[in-house]
Amino acid sequence: MPHSDACETYLREHDAQQLEGLREFLRIPSISSLPEHNDDVRRAAEWVATRLRALGARGVELLPTVGNPIVWGEWPAPAGAPTAILYGHYDVQPPDPLDLWETPPFEPTIRGERLYARGAADDKGNMFAPLAAIEALIATIGRLPIGIKCLFEGEEEIGSPSLPGFVRDNRERLRADFAICADGGMWGPDQPSLTVASKGIAACQIDLRTANTDLHSGQHGMAAPNAVEALARLVTTMHDDAGRITIDGFYEPIRDLTADERAQIAAIPFDEGEYRRGLELPALWGEPGYTALERRWARPSLDLNGLWGGFNGEGLKTVTPCEAHAKITCRLVPNQEPGAVLDLIEAHIARHCPPGATATLRRFGGAARPFAVSADHPALDAAEHVLRDLYGKDPLSIRAGGTLPVAETLQSELGADMIFFSWGMPGDNVHAPNESYLLPAFAAARRAYCAFLPELARVYGEVKR
Amino acid sequence: MPHSDACETYLREHDAQQLEGLREFLRIPSISSLPEHNDDVRRAAEWVATRLRALGARGVELLPTVGNPIVWGEWPAPAGAPTAILYGHYDVQPPDPLDLWETPPFEPTIRGERLYARGAADDKGNMFAPLAAIEALIATIGRLPIGIKCLFEGEEEIGSPSLPGFVRDNRERLRADFAICADGGMWGPDQPSLTVASKGIAACQIDLRTANTDLHSGQHGMAAPNAVEALARLVTTMHDDAGRITIDGFYEPIRDLTADERAQIAAIPFDEGEYRRGLELPALWGEPGYTALERRWARPSLDLNGLWGGFNGEGLKTVTPCEAHAKITCRLVPNQEPGAVLDLIEAHIARHCPPGATATLRRFGGAARPFAVSADHPALDAAEHVLRDLYGKDPLSIRAGGTLPVAETLQSELGADMIFFSWGMPGDNVHAPNESYLLPAFAAARRAYCAFLPELARVYGEVKR
Repeated sequence: MPHSDACETYLREHDAQQLEGLREFLRIPSISSLPEHNDDVRRAAEWVATRLRALGARGVELLPTVGNPIVWGEWPAPAGAPTAILYGHYDVQPPDPLDLWETPPFEPTIRGERLYARGAADDKGNMFAPLAAIEALIATIGRLPIGIKCLFEGEEEIGSPSLPGFVRDNRERLRADFAICADGGMWGPDQPSLTVASKGIAACQIDLRTANTDLHSGQHGMAAPNAVEALARLVTTMHDDAGRITIDGFYEPIRDLTADERAQIAAIPFDEGEYRRGLELPALWGEPGYTALERRWARPSLDLNGLWGGFNGEGLKTVTPCEAHAKITCRLVPNQEPGAVLDLIEAHIARHCPPGATATLRRFGGAARPFAVSADHPALDAAEHVLRDLYGKDPLSIRAGGTLPVAETLQSELGADMIFFSWGMPGDNVHAPNESYLLPAFAAARRAYCAFLPELARVYGEVKR
Repeated sequence: MPHSDACETYLREHDAQQLEGLREFLRIPSISSLPEHNDDVRRAAEWVATRLRALGARGVELLPTVGNPIVWGEWPAPAGAPTAILYGHYDVQPPDPLDLWETPPFEPTIRGERLYARGAADDKGNMFAPLAAIEALIATIGRLPIGIKCLFEGEEEIGSPSLPGFVRDNRERLRADFAICADGGMWGPDQPSLTVASKGIAACQIDLRTANTDLHSGQHGMAAPNAVEALARLVTTMHDDAGRITIDGFYEPIRDLTADERAQIAAIPFDEGEYRRGLELPALWGEPGYTALERRWARPSLDLNGLWGGFNGEGLKTVTPCEAHAKITCRLVPNQEPGAVLDLIEAHIARHCPPGATATLRRFGGAARPFAVSADHPALDAAEHVLRDLYGKDPLSIRAGGTLPVAETLQSELGADMIFFSWGMPGDNVHAPNESYLLPAFAAARRAYCAFLPELARVYGEVKR
C-alpha cells in the first residue's frame, strides 16, 4: 500500500480518537485577553507540550516570553530536506456575549457537520490538524519527510505582543526555509485557496472626560457637556457618512490598486448580495469606489470594536456621564506603518475633540505590518499542487482581511516566507458567538498535511538540484 | 420658654440620635432600578413605616401599587387647620461607578461637614428632616399644628411609574389643601430659595442592530456596517455641533422666554465661569442663544444617559459589533408632552438611521409633565416667611432643572399645589459617586420645619378669616 493510502487508512481508523483529542483541547478556556484566565492559558500551553512529547517531538518546552509562553518542539530534517516552522496559537478570544451561544463555549458540541466551541476554528482546530497528520505520518512511514519546528504562541488574540521580540532573540533556534501557518481559512468547503497576503493592525483606546463627576441630568444636562455625546461626536468625525475614513493623511502612503489587481479580485466568485444576505444586513457600508471584496482584501479599515459610557443596566438612570471610552482597531495595507497611523489618529483627536471635553489616546501593543508572500515561492507551489490533487481544481489566490503579525515578523526577521495552509471556512463565526469548525474541513486538513509534507520534501529536492 | 425655643433645644439635645436614625435609613440599599434590590426597597419602606408608628402617626401602612409600595401615615388636622400632603421618596439611584466612591455608598460616613452615602441628600436625608421636626414638635407642644398625610414613594428614581395611578385611585384619602415636597434643593448654604417650577421628563432606549452576529473586524470591518459606529452616527444627528436639539418639531410647542423672565433669571447670582470651574470643565455645552442658567431652568434637554456596544473589557477584542444601545432622557418645559416628544424621536430615528442598520425605540415608564406653583399660594407665603426669619434674607425664586412627577400629578388630580421645602445643596453629587448631605443643611431643615408647620396654621387661619 503506498504511503498516502496508509495515511488515509490511519486517519479514518483514528478519527474518533483524534476528534476527542481536539475536544479536550477546546475545553480549556485559554482566553488571553482576560487576566482571570491566565491559569487556563498556561494549562493550554502545557496540554500542547504534552501532545508534542507524545508525538515524539524533541526539545519540547514552554519558552518564556514577557507574556504567555511559546510552546516549542521539533523534528529534525532528514538529510537534504527543508525545515519549516509550523505556526499556530493556543489562545482564544473571549466568548461574550455569552447569552447568544446555543451551547456553552467551552463544552465542545457537535451539531450537524460542525463542532461548536470558542477556538474550534480559530485556532485550536486548525492547529490540531497538522499535529494529527504528523501522528499519521509517523505511524505509517516512521518519520517526517521534512524538518518541523513548532512555534505555538499564546498571545495571537491580543495581537502577539511578545512574538516579535521572541523571534529577534531566537534567530538561530528558529532558522528555517519557510513557515507554514496553521491559522487562517479556505475560500469554501469545495473551493481550495491559498492566502498570499494579510493586513497589518494598529489598535488604541480613546478615553474621554468632561466634568469631574457624573452629573444629575435634570440639573446639568442642558448646560454641561455629556461625555457620551462628546465621544460619539468625536468618533463620527473619523468617517464620512458613506464610510470613507476622514483622518488626515490616512490613505496617503497607500498605492492604489492596479487594473490587473482589480481584475484578479473581480474574477473571484464573490457575490456581494449573497454576502449581505448571509449576514442579514439591509446594506453594506464602507469606503466608496471599491467593491466589498476589494475593501476586505486591499483597503484599510478603522473600526469601533467597542464604545461605552454612562449607565447600561436595566431601566433608567438620569445621569449626564462624565467619561466615555472607545476601542479602535485599524487594519492596514502595504506602506501603512502602525505607529504612524496611531499618530494620525492622535492628531485627529486633538483637532476634533468637542469643546468641553478632553480626550487621550492609549496605544495597545501588538501592532503589526501587512504581509505578502513571494509569488514564486517553492513551498507555495507545493501547496498549490497538493490542493489541486485533493480537490480536483485550482486553488484561488486570496488575501486575508485579518492580521497575522507572525507572517510579517518571520519574513522580515528570518527571511522565512509563510505559506497559509489552514481550513477555516466562511460561517465558522470566529471571534463571535457559536464559533464552529466544519468536520469535513478537519478531515480535509489532515489529509492535505499528510500529502503536503512529502510534497515539500520533493519540491525542495528539485529546487536544490 | 416659647415653643420655637423648646423645639430648638430638643433638636440640639437629640442631634446625635437623629443623625444615627438617618444613618440607619441610609444603610438600606433601596435601589429601585435594579431588580436584585427589590427586597432592600421593601425593607426601606418598612423602616419608614416603623418610624412613622414610633412618631404616633395613625393608619400607618404600606399601600400596594403595581410597583413598590407607598408608605402612608397621617396626623389629623386640628380643628380649623389645613392639611398638607408630605411627599418624599425612600428609593435611591444605583451607586455605580462604584470604584469612584471614597467610602462605600451604603456605609454612611462623615467627612468634614458632610455625611456621605447614596441617598444622603436624594432623598433620605431631605425626607428624614421633616420627620425629625415632627418628633420635636410632638415632644414639645404635644401635637402637630396642621394635618399631615405622609406620601412616601419608592419609585421616584425610576420616574414614579405607579404614582399617577395611585393618586387617581386614592383621591379621597389624599384630599389636602396643598402638598409639601421634602425632595429638592436650596440655592446655597447661606441663600434660601423656593423652587416654583420643575421640568417634565420623557425617557427611552434605542436598540440598534446591524449583522446577525458579531463579526471578525479583519474579515468584515471594511465591508459590513458596525453597530456602534451606526448608533454613534444616529445619536449625533439629534444635536447640532453647538448643542441645539435637531429633532424636527422638538422646540415647536415651547413658548419663548419673555424679557421679564429673562431679567428675573439674570438677577440670580449665578456665575457661569464659577459653575464651569466647579465642574472642572474646559467649556459648557448646550443650546446657543441662552445663558447656562436659562438652559438649566427654562429650556429642554435631550441627554445620552448611557451608550454601549461591542467589547468593553480590558485590552483588545477585534470585533465588529452587531448591536449597540443608547439610553436617552429629555427634560421638558411647559407645553411639551412626554408622549409627543418620544413620537418625534421615533420619527427622527426612522428618518436618520444609517444604511445597513435597523433601530427601534423602547419607551420607558415614568414620563411626567412640567410643573409650576401658583404664584400667590398662601403656603408659598408661609414658606417665604419662615426662610426669611431663619436666614435673615429673602429667599430666591428658583426653578428645578430636574423632574418631580408628583408635583404635576397632585396639582392636576387633587388641586394641591406643591411647596418645595427641602435642603439639597450644590455639591451634594446627587445621582453621582460620593453623594453627600451637608450636616448644617440637615440642622437648618429641621429648624425650618419646626417653624413652618405652625406658620402654615397661622397663615391658613388668616386665609379663612
